[in-house]
Amino acid sequence: MQLGAFSVSLSVKDLATSQAFYEKLGFTVFGGNPEYGYLMLKNGEHVLGLFQGMFEGNILTFNPGWDQAGQPL
Amino acid sequence: MQLGAFSVSLSVKDLATSQAFYEKLGFTVFGGNPEYGYLMLKNGEHVLGLFQGMFEGNILTFNPGWDQAGQPL
Repeated sequence: MQLGAFSVSLSVKDLATSQAFYEKLGFTVFGGNPEYGYLMLKNGEHVLGLFQGMFEGNILTFNPGWDQAGQPL
Repeated sequence: MQLGAFSVSLSVKDLATSQAFYEKLGFTVFGGNPEYGYLMLKNGEHVLGLFQGMFEGNILTFNPGWDQAGQPL
């Protein structure tokens, strides 16, 4: 079973603080919108989603049908 | 900054139950040892570590110096 693109969706307390933390680790923002309370960050093939006030806990997210670069599988 | 191989390390209550769950999602065991309370599973490039009784909470794990296939960077 190919689960598709994988990211970890983190529920964060402060989007800007978490963005700054992960940018120090080499992640860069490639999607999302702070006005809607979320940002998508990438370091190489590794994808993190930061979500403020959207859900509790953290989520392993799979997107069936896409590869890690967002291309159709 | 290249963070190296990435996996999610999950603290699980029952190693065998979690193994069965992730195997249904297409993950296969490639490392670890139930006698030592942990297993490493892979689905394509995606790596999960299941750990029973080793730590609390879940961990984003990076292994600097290795790529996702365990080869030197």
